[in-house]
Amino acid sequence: MIRTRVILGYLGRIILIIGISMLSSVLCSLYYRESIIIPFSLAAGVTIVTGLLLVFSAEKQAIHYKEGFVIVSLGWLLASLFGSLPYIFTGCLPSFADAFFETVSGFTTTGASVISNVEATPKGLLFWRSLTQWLGGMGIIGLFVAIISGMGAQANHLFKAEVPGPVANKISPRVRETAKKLWITYIVLSVCCTVLLYLFGMNIFDSLCHTFATMATGGFSTRNASVGYYNSPLIQWTLTLFMFIAGVNFTLHYLGFKQRNLQVYLKNREFLFYTAIVVVASLLVTLSLSLGGSELSTEGKLRAAFFQVVTIVTTTGYSSVDFELWPNMALGIIFLMMFVGGCAGSTGGNIKPGRYLILLHRSIIEIKRIIHPKAVISLRFNDRIISDSLLINVLQFFFLYIMFLALGTIGLSCLDVDLITSLTAAASCLGNIGPGLGQVGPMDNYSFIADSGKYLLSLLMLIGRLEIYPLLLLFLPDFWRE
Amino acid sequence: MIRTRVILGYLGRIILIIGISMLSSVLCSLYYRESIIIPFSLAAGVTIVTGLLLVFSAEKQAIHYKEGFVIVSLGWLLASLFGSLPYIFTGCLPSFADAFFETVSGFTTTGASVISNVEATPKGLLFWRSLTQWLGGMGIIGLFVAIISGMGAQANHLFKAEVPGPVANKISPRVRETAKKLWITYIVLSVCCTVLLYLFGMNIFDSLCHTFATMATGGFSTRNASVGYYNSPLIQWTLTLFMFIAGVNFTLHYLGFKQRNLQVYLKNREFLFYTAIVVVASLLVTLSLSLGGSELSTEGKLRAAFFQVVTIVTTTGYSSVDFELWPNMALGIIFLMMFVGGCAGSTGGNIKPGRYLILLHRSIIEIKRIIHPKAVISLRFNDRIISDSLLINVLQFFFLYIMFLALGTIGLSCLDVDLITSLTAAASCLGNIGPGLGQVGPMDNYSFIADSGKYLLSLLMLIGRLEIYPLLLLFLPDFWRE
Repeated sequence: MIRTRVILGYLGRIILIIGISMLSSVLCSLYYRESIIIPFSLAAGVTIVTGLLLVFSAEKQAIHYKEGFVIVSLGWLLASLFGSLPYIFTGCLPSFADAFFETVSGFTTTGASVISNVEATPKGLLFWRSLTQWLGGMGIIGLFVAIISGMGAQANHLFKAEVPGPVANKISPRVRETAKKLWITYIVLSVCCTVLLYLFGMNIFDSLCHTFATMATGGFSTRNASVGYYNSPLIQWTLTLFMFIAGVNFTLHYLGFKQRNLQVYLKNREFLFYTAIVVVASLLVTLSLSLGGSELSTEGKLRAAFFQVVTIVTTTGYSSVDFELWPNMALGIIFLMMFVGGCAGSTGGNIKPGRYLILLHRSIIEIKRIIHPKAVISLRFNDRIISDSLLINVLQFFFLYIMFLALGTIGLSCLDVDLITSLTAAASCLGNIGPGLGQVGPMDNYSFIADSGKYLLSLLMLIGRLEIYPLLLLFLPDFWRE
Repeated sequence: MIRTRVILGYLGRIILIIGISMLSSVLCSLYYRESIIIPFSLAAGVTIVTGLLLVFSAEKQAIHYKEGFVIVSLGWLLASLFGSLPYIFTGCLPSFADAFFETVSGFTTTGASVISNVEATPKGLLFWRSLTQWLGGMGIIGLFVAIISGMGAQANHLFKAEVPGPVANKISPRVRETAKKLWITYIVLSVCCTVLLYLFGMNIFDSLCHTFATMATGGFSTRNASVGYYNSPLIQWTLTLFMFIAGVNFTLHYLGFKQRNLQVYLKNREFLFYTAIVVVASLLVTLSLSLGGSELSTEGKLRAAFFQVVTIVTTTGYSSVDFELWPNMALGIIFLMMFVGGCAGSTGGNIKPGRYLILLHRSIIEIKRIIHPKAVISLRFNDRIISDSLLINVLQFFFLYIMFLALGTIGLSCLDVDLITSLTAAASCLGNIGPGLGQVGPMDNYSFIADSGKYLLSLLMLIGRLEIYPLLLLFLPDFWRE
């Protein structure tokens, strides 16, 4: 049984959090004395009042199993809906499809944009745009679980539905504690990133906005040329480092810091695999740039290669150069990196190295079983045995991921978008990356796509961020029955 | 334990079959009084003598489990090796990489070609080229199982390793009988196809060659413009029909004919799904052509759409028009069709509708299980319950298929081939289709690719044809140990 009033209460709290966060951006606008201050305040006001109305009209009770899914899915949809109000009210993105696309792209940390001239956009809005990424990165629901008590045992379920990856990690037996600790780790790392960027020459506004987008593996920039605007190697390497950090399981950061011990990283197979992918791919790209006769210095080539590989693998999606002009080999590697993603429990999206590890390990076992039909070989992941049902779940996820990729590709093709753009736009949105190739390359944006295409891509972003199932359930009549 | 002498004996028999088939092409050359007759005879001679030597030097014994895999994999490799001799000896394709690629493309019924000017190639060689497809279509090993007795119980295993699809069908309890019946069905249908093509105006040579390539879902043509050469709607519709038939499980054809009852088709879910895909995709392509302002008549649009969809879905790979010039929507559909394939037990390659059916059905069950966590819902396919281990097998196949696609794409990218060409060439070869997009489009060929790329693509074709595992085992040291 799904109790509407209980759900509305929780949804109201989520909307309230969005509204209060919006206020911080209004303050930013106020500081810069921008003309959008009145409509911007109105957007925040509408959001906060709606949230309050819902909270006070509802009864607060512990939630049930099914209700958890509804709260997560509708919570993300409503956050995106109210989050788009500032764009609409201020007239920055008057079309609802555009504003919704930009907000979903923010919360899901995709970073695909329809704004052509970012630098002409009021600073308050840019701050909000980057903040949506930061909120979405560690998870709106996670934040909500962390700060609201009394949700009952099912908070666990809520939290798990939002945290990406095949196997859930626990730092603390109580889910609220886990959410809190992860959020604190996130905040501490974000402060470090901001300070470093500021020290290396970014102004404070840009430092904050780029920190939001980096730690969330989001990718929105406050500059038209994205990170390409900053020629400073120190800034680019710092961003590369923090994107890489944001693509690691935050549980490891918490434990590593608490135990003052780097062993936790080295014992984690997914982390090692993720690092190996990044290093090998970056070196291959560097090689390709060298073979292609690039005129950059060795450091320049390494920096460009590492930056671009890390930004795609972690699903951040900044651009420092137009990699569409790179040699075919480098471009092929970048394309494949669009299907990797950050570790489970990181802020990165996509299929994730952990799933690949399980699937590759299982493939080897499959072959060994053909050779030794009677042997019993169990599948392990970080020293845990993976049951057949979890394995099927992971394989199934991979299959559905590819099916949604196909659906997105054909959907965009039907809107007369060319094949390479359709394919990479779908891959990029589903993987929460940002840029693709062709007409949605690192130097382009998504504004030319028809409204129906923007809704389709928004749906793909949400499906990718929530890892397919929660959102699908909403569309199933069977789910609402009984 | 793998007994080399026993294996060599069986391999000798396979080589002998190849050699004897080659003789028929030599006769064709003789009939047309071609100058290549001496080197061509030499190629056949070398093949037959090698086969005979191996047969007589070996002991004939029933084979064991592991030996079956070796015979299948090496059988296909050796067939491709000896099958390429005519191209090399006659100087038609002097480079070994080219000749090997063309032969593998033939036996695996891919139809990717490195010959630019087909019409300038001696007829005897063209006959051989088409014949390799026909032999590979129903299966070299199947033919061998059908005509050679006394292989023991493991013939079953051999046969199964070569017949594509997730679930093996049995017409007869004895595998030799099954292989025989399937080959007879294949021959009967081939005769029908030849007669119809001849009646509709093709000359007898072209009728035979196109029948070979059609029934095998191969796609080699004897004309530079492929089927585009024949403007006759009757010929194009006939080819469409027979490609469609060749993409159906031959067990159904046998049973349908034997029982004089079309119910066997309608009861088969994979057949219905396959038909639905073909019809829906073709109608969408027709719609796209209409919206794109095509100047063709309605019949012309329908014919072009059905022909091109059927040729890609069944993995034949003929071309009647340059579909790269079609609107984006039609092109997107054609691209997705590159991942479908013919039914299990057909001559078509690729992932196959049956696997998709199982995976889609399982996805629905997965979602139902989230809604009703305690419900027990079993997965069925054609009224058989699919066990978890078979399901994992199918999912695993899908995963590895995509991994080999990624490997092929990156491999070609490293040879400086552009992305869309790399991706579609890998997809096309792995799926045994033939044409791709970009530089390997329906009006191009594979000759420009570097030799290492040709070997890579040959490997992908074999991996696709043998459905991944048999060939992989050969490269595993563990397989040879003990």
